[in-house]
Amino acid sequence: MKIEGKHYHTIWLKDNNPEVIEVIDQRLLPHQMEVYEVNSVDEAAKAISDMVVRGAPLIGVTAAYGLYLACLKNPSNDHLIKAANTLKASRPTAVNLAWAVDLMMKELMDFSENERVQKALTMADKIKADDIEVCRNIGVHGLNIIRNLYQKHQRTINILTHCNAGWLATIDWGTATSPIYQAIAEGIPIHVWVDETRPRNQGANLTAYELLQQEVPHTLVVDNTGGHLMQHGMVDMVIVGTDRTTAQGDVANKIGTYLKALAAKDNNIPFYVALPSSTIDWDLNDGLKEIPIEQRSGEEVTSIWGWTGEKMQKVQLSPTGTPAANYGFDVTPARLVTGLITERGICSASSEGLLTLFPEKAPSNG
Amino acid sequence: MKIEGKHYHTIWLKDNNPEVIEVIDQRLLPHQMEVYEVNSVDEAAKAISDMVVRGAPLIGVTAAYGLYLACLKNPSNDHLIKAANTLKASRPTAVNLAWAVDLMMKELMDFSENERVQKALTMADKIKADDIEVCRNIGVHGLNIIRNLYQKHQRTINILTHCNAGWLATIDWGTATSPIYQAIAEGIPIHVWVDETRPRNQGANLTAYELLQQEVPHTLVVDNTGGHLMQHGMVDMVIVGTDRTTAQGDVANKIGTYLKALAAKDNNIPFYVALPSSTIDWDLNDGLKEIPIEQRSGEEVTSIWGWTGEKMQKVQLSPTGTPAANYGFDVTPARLVTGLITERGICSASSEGLLTLFPEKAPSNG
Repeated sequence: MKIEGKHYHTIWLKDNNPEVIEVIDQRLLPHQMEVYEVNSVDEAAKAISDMVVRGAPLIGVTAAYGLYLACLKNPSNDHLIKAANTLKASRPTAVNLAWAVDLMMKELMDFSENERVQKALTMADKIKADDIEVCRNIGVHGLNIIRNLYQKHQRTINILTHCNAGWLATIDWGTATSPIYQAIAEGIPIHVWVDETRPRNQGANLTAYELLQQEVPHTLVVDNTGGHLMQHGMVDMVIVGTDRTTAQGDVANKIGTYLKALAAKDNNIPFYVALPSSTIDWDLNDGLKEIPIEQRSGEEVTSIWGWTGEKMQKVQLSPTGTPAANYGFDVTPARLVTGLITERGICSASSEGLLTLFPEKAPSNG
Repeated sequence: MKIEGKHYHTIWLKDNNPEVIEVIDQRLLPHQMEVYEVNSVDEAAKAISDMVVRGAPLIGVTAAYGLYLACLKNPSNDHLIKAANTLKASRPTAVNLAWAVDLMMKELMDFSENERVQKALTMADKIKADDIEVCRNIGVHGLNIIRNLYQKHQRTINILTHCNAGWLATIDWGTATSPIYQAIAEGIPIHVWVDETRPRNQGANLTAYELLQQEVPHTLVVDNTGGHLMQHGMVDMVIVGTDRTTAQGDVANKIGTYLKALAAKDNNIPFYVALPSSTIDWDLNDGLKEIPIEQRSGEEVTSIWGWTGEKMQKVQLSPTGTPAANYGFDVTPARLVTGLITERGICSASSEGLLTLFPEKAPSNG
């Protein structure tokens, strides 16, 4: 997608130095657009844990290139196994981080040490290219829902989204935003309500930024607002992403998603989750009981970073001495999800629905 | 209640100069505790619209003293009617602003101009004293609910609250916090989950501050978190305040309250609203259709004030060019409210429930 009119991906090999990876430093957006260099697997893990890169698909691709950097330094089994563990520990909730690492490791182990650098690069490039195609296809399928709403209402379609499941969370297109970008390309008038998404404000920082750069009409709201908008007919559909989906269709996404799903249900508004199938954890069923929820530092709640007009500045929001809890995700039960938009099509949020699209995952095929 | 161990009300006549009103400047909390002088009715209206004072009961009392200041300057009918209109326009959603102004005006008009200053002061003092007594009684009734939960669970009772319906929103005790303070006084162990309450962060700024000052165990969370806490058994009850309650028990409270009510319902957790009966608008029934929702500046969403360690600083959160919407309140339908805690007792959120406590409001008595 575009930044200042120029086409970008979120991760790429450095020009003239293919032993360095470059990413957009997402911590500085929307106020500064800077490129961040990743020179080693430890730097890749740090870029993930520090949220220089974030978003499940981009984390997966970053980890894949991280293993390529590990091979450059030392392609031995011992070093790669250690590198894989370091990467997996950098964001425990993101299931396709583990997916990408396991996929890479499984194949790399079949090659001799001197073949591994080239193989790792080829595989990381393929995981990246596949992600772009997956996101494009999510958009193709999701576009049908938006087109139907437009044909019914014949006016601007209002879509609410939470957090950033945009192209900055992936390589290109995004997941929840891909249907929006494709609807805009088709000429359907869209307006997006952007939840700011405290505590890290990925909606205000990233989703608003990318919609602005793509010239998509949008309005920022605090996370408290969605219910009111839905009560008053100002939302036609909700689309969010997910970091982890269970085999029965429960979705773990950014904290607060569950509250929006409840409001959508209460107001009879369709609530869709867009996801690459790599975020499905086929071994899990009951998301509430089985998905571990990452807890982050309370300082992300008690303070916030913003732009003074000259520089980024952290300011304290709450009184000194007040403790804070910071749960990163919540689980939206499948019963609140109208449908899952995947790269293979749209299905109900249920074991049956998912198996119609992914029949190879049926237990009898396991 | 206490600040740094010293007992305060939120509004008082200045020592040695009873022609000046003093209030706590709530815009500077929790980082600075400063007293703000109100010298005229226009300054009273400005203190209300700028949110130097906030919270429905405190706004009502501030307006009452505002009319006293208006009498000091010019007790004529014309001037007082103009003053009343100025005050009423300063925060349109707060029903007991209009209630206090109308009550004062009705009586003042029966007195001659030279009696009005003394009468206005007596009345404002009485509205203030009544508010303290009302809040104390809300606490006495609400305490029963907490005591029952404690007797059942025999462990710390976890209470979630949204925004600030604490003593800083009233004169003393608060509404939603009054049962908490009285339970603490009785020795019941309490822990409070404090929603930060974007965009103005009255939870982080004020509720956390007053709980800290009263030494009540509490944890700050972003507004997105309550659903997750409730899904995992970490909340035993929700208590919030309200700016306006309809005759059928719908409540308009700070934006986001509706989302917490939905989560409480979904998890079978009691959701109580604490209110002085002055916030009941007996002329309204369907809150969603009939309560006008104040829209405030989008800048409260795109920027935030915080403490740098040296001074208050405003920082920009979203990209320049992204518009924001800022709805101040939402309406929680009565069906989601377990009960209303009033100064006369607890009732169901329904016409029938309210009329058992306020039989004089029955239409046949109207």
